[in-house]
Amino acid sequence: MKFQKSKTLSLGRLATLSTIKENLRVKTSFQKSESPSAQVLDNSNGHSNGGDSDSILLFSAISGYKEKTPRYAPPPEHFSISETDSPRRPSSALSGSTDARASSFNGQHIAADETFSSSAEYRDYDGPVMLREPAVDGREADEDSNGEVGLQRGEIISTSRDFEEEEELWQFPPKVSGLGLDRRDLATDDKWVPRHPDLIRIKGFHPFNGEPPLSTLMHFGFLTPTSLHFVRNHGAVPQAGWESWTIEITGLMTKPKKFTMRDLLCFPSRRLPVTLMCSGNRSKELSKGGKSLGLKWGPGAVSTSVWGGARLCDVLQHCGVLMPKKRGVQYFVCCSGADKLAPSSSSYGTSIPLEVAMDESRDVLLAYEQNGDLLTPDHGFPVRLIVPGFTGGRSVKWLNKIEISAEQSDSYYHLHDNRMLPSQVQDLDTAISEGWMSRPEFVINEMNVNSVICTPAHSQTLTIDPSNEDAAYSITGYAYSGTGKKIGRVEVSLDGGKTWKFCSVGYPAQPTKHGMYWSWCFWETRVDVMELVESSEIVVRAWDSAMNTQPENSSWNLLGNMNNCWYRVKIHRDDPADDPDAGQDERTISFEHPTQPGMLNGGWLQTSQASEPESERELTLKLMHQESSSNLDLGDQLPSTPRLL
Amino acid sequence: MKFQKSKTLSLGRLATLSTIKENLRVKTSFQKSESPSAQVLDNSNGHSNGGDSDSILLFSAISGYKEKTPRYAPPPEHFSISETDSPRRPSSALSGSTDARASSFNGQHIAADETFSSSAEYRDYDGPVMLREPAVDGREADEDSNGEVGLQRGEIISTSRDFEEEEELWQFPPKVSGLGLDRRDLATDDKWVPRHPDLIRIKGFHPFNGEPPLSTLMHFGFLTPTSLHFVRNHGAVPQAGWESWTIEITGLMTKPKKFTMRDLLCFPSRRLPVTLMCSGNRSKELSKGGKSLGLKWGPGAVSTSVWGGARLCDVLQHCGVLMPKKRGVQYFVCCSGADKLAPSSSSYGTSIPLEVAMDESRDVLLAYEQNGDLLTPDHGFPVRLIVPGFTGGRSVKWLNKIEISAEQSDSYYHLHDNRMLPSQVQDLDTAISEGWMSRPEFVINEMNVNSVICTPAHSQTLTIDPSNEDAAYSITGYAYSGTGKKIGRVEVSLDGGKTWKFCSVGYPAQPTKHGMYWSWCFWETRVDVMELVESSEIVVRAWDSAMNTQPENSSWNLLGNMNNCWYRVKIHRDDPADDPDAGQDERTISFEHPTQPGMLNGGWLQTSQASEPESERELTLKLMHQESSSNLDLGDQLPSTPRLL
Repeated sequence: MKFQKSKTLSLGRLATLSTIKENLRVKTSFQKSESPSAQVLDNSNGHSNGGDSDSILLFSAISGYKEKTPRYAPPPEHFSISETDSPRRPSSALSGSTDARASSFNGQHIAADETFSSSAEYRDYDGPVMLREPAVDGREADEDSNGEVGLQRGEIISTSRDFEEEEELWQFPPKVSGLGLDRRDLATDDKWVPRHPDLIRIKGFHPFNGEPPLSTLMHFGFLTPTSLHFVRNHGAVPQAGWESWTIEITGLMTKPKKFTMRDLLCFPSRRLPVTLMCSGNRSKELSKGGKSLGLKWGPGAVSTSVWGGARLCDVLQHCGVLMPKKRGVQYFVCCSGADKLAPSSSSYGTSIPLEVAMDESRDVLLAYEQNGDLLTPDHGFPVRLIVPGFTGGRSVKWLNKIEISAEQSDSYYHLHDNRMLPSQVQDLDTAISEGWMSRPEFVINEMNVNSVICTPAHSQTLTIDPSNEDAAYSITGYAYSGTGKKIGRVEVSLDGGKTWKFCSVGYPAQPTKHGMYWSWCFWETRVDVMELVESSEIVVRAWDSAMNTQPENSSWNLLGNMNNCWYRVKIHRDDPADDPDAGQDERTISFEHPTQPGMLNGGWLQTSQASEPESERELTLKLMHQESSSNLDLGDQLPSTPRLL
Repeated sequence: MKFQKSKTLSLGRLATLSTIKENLRVKTSFQKSESPSAQVLDNSNGHSNGGDSDSILLFSAISGYKEKTPRYAPPPEHFSISETDSPRRPSSALSGSTDARASSFNGQHIAADETFSSSAEYRDYDGPVMLREPAVDGREADEDSNGEVGLQRGEIISTSRDFEEEEELWQFPPKVSGLGLDRRDLATDDKWVPRHPDLIRIKGFHPFNGEPPLSTLMHFGFLTPTSLHFVRNHGAVPQAGWESWTIEITGLMTKPKKFTMRDLLCFPSRRLPVTLMCSGNRSKELSKGGKSLGLKWGPGAVSTSVWGGARLCDVLQHCGVLMPKKRGVQYFVCCSGADKLAPSSSSYGTSIPLEVAMDESRDVLLAYEQNGDLLTPDHGFPVRLIVPGFTGGRSVKWLNKIEISAEQSDSYYHLHDNRMLPSQVQDLDTAISEGWMSRPEFVINEMNVNSVICTPAHSQTLTIDPSNEDAAYSITGYAYSGTGKKIGRVEVSLDGGKTWKFCSVGYPAQPTKHGMYWSWCFWETRVDVMELVESSEIVVRAWDSAMNTQPENSSWNLLGNMNNCWYRVKIHRDDPADDPDAGQDERTISFEHPTQPGMLNGGWLQTSQASEPESERELTLKLMHQESSSNLDLGDQLPSTPRLL
């Protein structure tokens, strides 16, 4: 068998498994554990279900980073949210006390302390990377390869590009307890999918869409635990197998090919922290302005993981991808997943410009790793696209087909989702019949600049007495821009935007060598307690390095996307008469965020969610699932709330 | 003599002049004129003052594009501003009539019809490219070369990069009559510099800073005639010679070198349209909010030219530039010009990140050509930097030194200009003493998203009678974002931002092959005349493709930079009693922009400019020039206004 040498990729020599592992270790700065046998026995990550020692060793090389020196310090104290795990009166005078929402946890969760691996429901989700020696004659290697002479399994692909960039030794986020099956999923096709009960379900019916409570998200800081990462599904989670999975790569290229997961592992891996944000993050704030389609997300449809995988540009180059020859002509990378969706059992599909995929500085990945583990079912196991900076909706999960085309994706979901229509388009009929929906200028790719106040939290209260009225209070939050630009500044106003306080901003991740900021940052400013007492509102706005900032008011749009108006937390002065226990010199103020996610009540922007008719698009999705989940429209349930982790 | 071969540049063979010309023609799609002799005699562009026929031929190759098929159609009719060149009543019912400001032109201009070349004041500004055969033994070629074995004059440098991108045959803007010397410059060091009288002088004293009237700018559309391009000078224009000019390139590189203009011509040329905008564009709108330093620009501190020159990345690669090895470490390209400025006779200097300079997709040029001609004195003859998307302040004029450094430029002007400080920094003393001025996050590089209404023009009136009250009126303007991102949408509101009309947007230039939009675009929306009558204000806002938009209100900042709030044109209903000639059924409305540039009166935001104290920074500049221009503080002059061109 002969290997073809593509124009820019030089195929390496046929490697043995040990070479592969060695190479993986070197290329990604993996270090073999001091006591590999301990790691072999440690299956608490849930993926290890046995296998030969070589494959386990490799797997431990992929997942065993726990010994590394932390790159990031633990979150500062003010990010530590005590409201749920310490109902006792805080000893620090200025720690907030909150309402007792934690007690409303409704106990619907079956196995809060089960680990990910102990469920018998995993079926075809078959665990660790089972890299075996390639068949000696290479025949097995090519049986899925679409008839093209292609990649030899087990071969290391090297590219002409330098990997001079120092790989950071990322300190992954902790694994949180509580993952397990959920009663709310049992009558659905997702009944086998483990989920964390703290994810707030945006709707009472399926598909599953959830975001972590803002305080939980901030508790973990820079990197979000995988099981608490927000989830945006469009249908039931596909049941996938690592060994049997293929990605067909086809279209405008000289060597189309079907890749297995083993093939992908042969490409040099790239690992970097990336913030994913849903286009609909903060969409619930828009619903007051008028009926909008789309889910009612709070400000937690954003999370950050260290994603790892092959670079899409390397894989496409290997396939001999063709670039447009004429200026102004665009090609597209059309991706689709294995989920079967309404209408007409199509897959979720979307596209990104080819120039983005091929631009090394954009770091587009075929990711098979999240926070040092293989992907989980909700996040696209075994492989998904990761497009840094773009809306999460472009990072196709359960990816099984890539087609390079001169046209955008024609998937229903590409054409009808992740768009920001002008405000004059008031309903879906108009959007479609007048052609608004298909205009390229409304496609959401890069995310705009955004920031959110995390402390004070919603419903948090603050009691001021003579002992602390000279103290300072720390206002904190996150900020993010999807353009790869640094958040240049964050400002807080206590007078509705008349004057602004300049905040200190911490950037947990360095920019990439191309100067890109692919993840969020955290800001803080300290104010005198008495300033809060005298103010009626805390407002935040961020600026990116091009001095683009957030608009004062939201721009309603039909699909409810891209809301990045100033985030406002109202301050209420509680009437002392309401609290007979309050001391004579005590004053209490409380804080109210604009909304609470999904069906949760609360927030100064709250409108009667019950009176809002179901949107058309949601009805479509609902119809699709009504048979299996008609008894699951849990509109009256009490969703889960932040819990002690 | 031996040529060194750098790592990524392969030095070509020693070329004769005819080879150079042939090569230039091929590389840049130059075509020899059908009748070269006619071009030799045509010196109306003002640069040709004789020379051997070879040099003239080459010059005609550089400047003679007039025969090319226009790439862009003439501006559409609604961009054609008739107010100044046709004072007669417009035949079209809805063309605006204006006040008679044209008649206020004060006649201070000496030689409005003199051509650029006819002035005897040019001194050392020595005309066309005088490329001669290199000295046979190469000694002359190296006499300025800093002792390094370097580039052989007349040699063609080729790079390893493909120039596959189709060069556009740009249709250059027309040359407008009127260029000449100006009485206001006669007692200054700029007395030899030809200028167009229509540029509105922002201050009555030197250095020269001028912007074209908005209506003139829009009249020419996509490409601004060179003599009407806005000018931002910090001191007197250096008197430069093409032959004697050198750029010293030094710092973190293996082969520092002094380049002559001939050397630069040896690099492949790149030519593309780039919009330059001053950080202070629209700064006069900020002065109402509080005293701000900086010039009081109107919305015309923006212009677009086709710039041509060598790519900075090629030149730096040729010098063996070193890149930082560690992530998070930045190097800078520190550039300075030949202008001698206060304080302490330093030059204007600034820096850009090295990663930007070396990023092929950013198209940073060492430009020696504007709109097909050599540069003019006011725009940096013989060579300047062009950094697409960045504030004009980074595009250093009269460039004579580049140093690659691990530090930003320490030039006074880098540290004190082109920054956007937080609004809490209220005065220069605080800015400096508290270290605000030197913080890197306030450096302005890329420009934010901006848009301006051009028609209706300031002071334009519109008479509505029964014959036209059903007609439509076309509102137009420009929009720009400096991030290379496409302007995704432009919206106009007639009700103060409650509802928005989606505008059509025209993009005269295709994106580059890297998908970059380096130049402005034009937008239009048609409204019913009666909608205007019933409205009190036209508001515009633009969005870039990442859905970043303009803020509703401006953010005052000490240096008066980066104002991109919604642009608002007020609508006034004139009292019929004021016009006894008005017909019974006629109604007249008039339009008022927020400001007029510089010292011009007018605009609904107008405050008493006279009562504003001189800013400290401007005083510095003024002091520097007071000796030569003490009789030139023409605060009470009537600046020039749009004229028939």
